[in-house]
Amino acid sequence: MSLVLYTLCGTDPMRHFSPHVWKAVMALKHKGLDFEERPTRFTEIPGIEGGITKTVPVLRHDDAVVVDSFAIAEYLERTWPDRPSLFGGEGGHASARLIEAWSFLELHPLIRNIAVRDIWTMLDDKDQAYFRPNREERFGATLEALHEGRDAMVPLLLARLEPLRMVLARQAFIGGEGPLFVDYIVFGALQWLRVTGTLWPLKSDDIVTGWFERCLDLHGGAGRAVPARL
Amino acid sequence: MSLVLYTLCGTDPMRHFSPHVWKAVMALKHKGLDFEERPTRFTEIPGIEGGITKTVPVLRHDDAVVVDSFAIAEYLERTWPDRPSLFGGEGGHASARLIEAWSFLELHPLIRNIAVRDIWTMLDDKDQAYFRPNREERFGATLEALHEGRDAMVPLLLARLEPLRMVLARQAFIGGEGPLFVDYIVFGALQWLRVTGTLWPLKSDDIVTGWFERCLDLHGGAGRAVPARL
Repeated sequence: MSLVLYTLCGTDPMRHFSPHVWKAVMALKHKGLDFEERPTRFTEIPGIEGGITKTVPVLRHDDAVVVDSFAIAEYLERTWPDRPSLFGGEGGHASARLIEAWSFLELHPLIRNIAVRDIWTMLDDKDQAYFRPNREERFGATLEALHEGRDAMVPLLLARLEPLRMVLARQAFIGGEGPLFVDYIVFGALQWLRVTGTLWPLKSDDIVTGWFERCLDLHGGAGRAVPARL
Repeated sequence: MSLVLYTLCGTDPMRHFSPHVWKAVMALKHKGLDFEERPTRFTEIPGIEGGITKTVPVLRHDDAVVVDSFAIAEYLERTWPDRPSLFGGEGGHASARLIEAWSFLELHPLIRNIAVRDIWTMLDDKDQAYFRPNREERFGATLEALHEGRDAMVPLLLARLEPLRMVLARQAFIGGEGPLFVDYIVFGALQWLRVTGTLWPLKSDDIVTGWFERCLDLHGGAGRAVPARL
């Protein structure tokens, strides 16, 4: 059996940083699966697997190719049902979509604003030439303007984590006593910031920090394999 | 077997309006259980079941008394495991807590600001005399000031529903093809506004409206049994 995960990197092939790739990495580890990481730069993504996608992660499992982190989690759950569950049943599977949407719509935009220029500094010339105009058009601001405004994003991000704090006052993981894919969804967002950002907003006494550290410890410290940028 | 649910009402005993009571009502209906509603006014709550609680819903099942909507859902799931599941497994159970926290922290404060004076007008003299100073102190504003500011809450509420829209573009209910307790959590928040508010923010072409109408249709139209205030 062969499992290959296409990840996203800058000049350092080991510092993969996409939040969506991190979800897939943690899902694979959760299932106890060995896989080859194939670091991919932004401008290389259109060449993956004959041009199947504009985004990573992409998983190749023998003859199957799966695009999108949630679809990868579903594929792993379906293909290895006897290994630790990523969803904890159909209710967890369906409900994970609202948690994914919350993370994507509420957390990602703020993290992106905080980290986007830091990410640009991690890219090679070719990727920088693609990334800057693409993102500046998408966000309607220069990378430098976003960077200068990042301090204002921090209290907003900390406030938007309040629902997570309410949950963590009651249970160790979003998935309950142990982690599920819903944890990896939110972990992926913060890990994206951890491995790219020159700013880290969480205080050590924040209950979210305790949970994030527990996530970093999972699966042999898989999340710590890429050091923090700071 | 006897099942009694203490609900929250104003002068009209049938117009029970608490978002948390609505979660419990829908959970009981989901399990196909017959129960007696016992309408309770704010100032009567401390007298329920020997003073066990400051809030409703409260469920009495023979000799057992359960306080809190989520605890009631857990009790029903545990006591009637062979009836339709409210959580769809342990993952759904755990993940429902983040959706509860999101609804409580992101949606409830806006709905409360929109509806709080409308709720006051539904109460009898004794409850009004309790409710006004209690809420004005809690929210740091007069009921009239909150009412005057309600139009500004509408676009915020509509924006905060965006994660729900993203989910509903993919599936009929938050719980997947059919409803789970996570649907009743969010339904309860909007139903609270529907049965108390003299303002209704959702447009008919909003995908959230389609889902809310589906929720109102569930279990023999249980949600429609109390007409909209408007």
